[in-house]
Amino acid sequence: MSFTLATPVRFSDIDHAGIVYFPRFFHMFHLAFEEMWRVRLAPGGYAELMNRDRIGFPAVHASCDFAAPLRFGDMAEIDLSVARLGAKSITWHYKVYRAEGGERTLCAEGRVVSASVDLTRFVAVAVPDRIVAVLADLVEPPT
Amino acid sequence: MSFTLATPVRFSDIDHAGIVYFPRFFHMFHLAFEEMWRVRLAPGGYAELMNRDRIGFPAVHASCDFAAPLRFGDMAEIDLSVARLGAKSITWHYKVYRAEGGERTLCAEGRVVSASVDLTRFVAVAVPDRIVAVLADLVEPPT
Amino acid sequence: MSFTLATPVRFSDIDHAGIVYFPRFFHMFHLAFEEMWRVRLAPGGYAELMNRDRIGFPAVHASCDFAAPLRFGDMAEIDLSVARLGAKSITWHYKVYRAEGGERTLCAEGRVVSASVDLTRFVAVAVPDRIVAVLADLVEPPT
Amino acid sequence: MSFTLATPVRFSDIDHAGIVYFPRFFHMFHLAFEEMWRVRLAPGGYAELMNRDRIGFPAVHASCDFAAPLRFGDMAEIDLSVARLGAKSITWHYKVYRAEGGERTLCAEGRVVSASVDLTRFVAVAVPDRIVAVLADLVEPPT
Repeated sequence: MSFTLATPVRFSDIDHAGIVYFPRFFHMFHLAFEEMWRVRLAPGGYAELMNRDRIGFPAVHASCDFAAPLRFGDMAEIDLSVARLGAKSITWHYKVYRAEGGERTLCAEGRVVSASVDLTRFVAVAVPDRIVAVLADLVEPPT
Repeated sequence: MSFTLATPVRFSDIDHAGIVYFPRFFHMFHLAFEEMWRVRLAPGGYAELMNRDRIGFPAVHASCDFAAPLRFGDMAEIDLSVARLGAKSITWHYKVYRAEGGERTLCAEGRVVSASVDLTRFVAVAVPDRIVAVLADLVEPPT
Repeated sequence: MSFTLATPVRFSDIDHAGIVYFPRFFHMFHLAFEEMWRVRLAPGGYAELMNRDRIGFPAVHASCDFAAPLRFGDMAEIDLSVARLGAKSITWHYKVYRAEGGERTLCAEGRVVSASVDLTRFVAVAVPDRIVAVLADLVEPPT
Repeated sequence: MSFTLATPVRFSDIDHAGIVYFPRFFHMFHLAFEEMWRVRLAPGGYAELMNRDRIGFPAVHASCDFAAPLRFGDMAEIDLSVARLGAKSITWHYKVYRAEGGERTLCAEGRVVSASVDLTRFVAVAVPDRIVAVLADLVEPPT
């Protein structure tokens, strides 16, 4: 199971080559990440997790394969699942599709490894139980 | 009457001061502009207007008053109306609100004057009739 | 007298129309603003002003006229001067040029009004004396 | 041997966590890439390669390890070398450092694999000889 965010490609996502600037795909990953927290925790829930609970998930590794370009006018769909829910880290798995007429073409697929961090001391801590619960159904089955 | 886009403030909209970076408000204006075309013309309609019909609306003037900050976790609502629909130019009027619990707080209000431009020759041309029709109900009444 | 930052137009400054996305001009304004502090205060000087002295200069108004497009491959020069150095506000004046072969073509000209703000209490305060001294020679003569 | 771009961290590179937004590191990679072409080909040289010669180097894969955060006020130094110069692809190798007082702290290290592409037909083509020559001294020795 995965969480999906649909978003139009933006006028300013485009670079001089006329296609989505490749670092923007990592931004798209993050948009899906933010939206997942917003829907599953609360509006403002991820901000609260950081501001009040002082827990955050900074990236320690990111990678992406780019399979096809996205252009202005395209609708993007970003699938988010959890490739690995570790004790003190989470591996997010993203797929970005171009969606048109009920069909989806894979444009980019990547992973981001986040540490679970106490933002006050900037040290790794256990992923909080309530976060584990929120993510449980997004964890991919072992292959 | 106005067209409204609701969008969460993004994690990366924030600057070192912890509030939305002021140039991002002009980007928010543009998001509402893009969404209006997407909804009222067609998905990909504004791209098509540029790519096929070679008509675009580059900004020749932009201004904004900033009344209150937006922060990560906030929901923004962006109202778009047309302050003036000229023969060869359009003055867009934007208001950005923080929306919470049915209340809206004005954070920024601005205007962007766009020329109607033939993108092949880069000269001003009359706003196409079908665009005038699409915008008609967004034109503000004279005050 | 003015402070000038020269910077190449970036690959990602471009939008779907193939020219610099208009909100990026306000970002270019800010780059010159940051660079001026960096050179005149110290590397990290503006961050320190905010972090330690808790003084910042958030925008309360911004405007820009766009005269000519910038494209990838162009070199931009951004002139910064002070149109008005008020007791509790500063009006920055920016001109963005395309520079080529010793010639400069004006592409955009704008102003940003900043409040001088105590970031802890978020209220307007007098512009600190040492800042007034740093900016003195950038203040435009009365016309 | 490597090509190095030094650039201050920008006010808007920061996210809600107060550190450089991780997708911005890939943008920093690209800034060094652009600057290398600008210095080694010509100002506007990479734009010309794309616009006139119709050759470009879109990313097909990108990865990065994040070792330490960058903050506003920091000076970043970005080293670019060529990990592999293939017949129809180039693997760029980037290291981003925080530079202070003659010392450098590694903040991020990554690779981007670019295809050499004919932009008209969007098919892979041989890396042009003059590009091979421009990059020759940046190719890392076999380990």
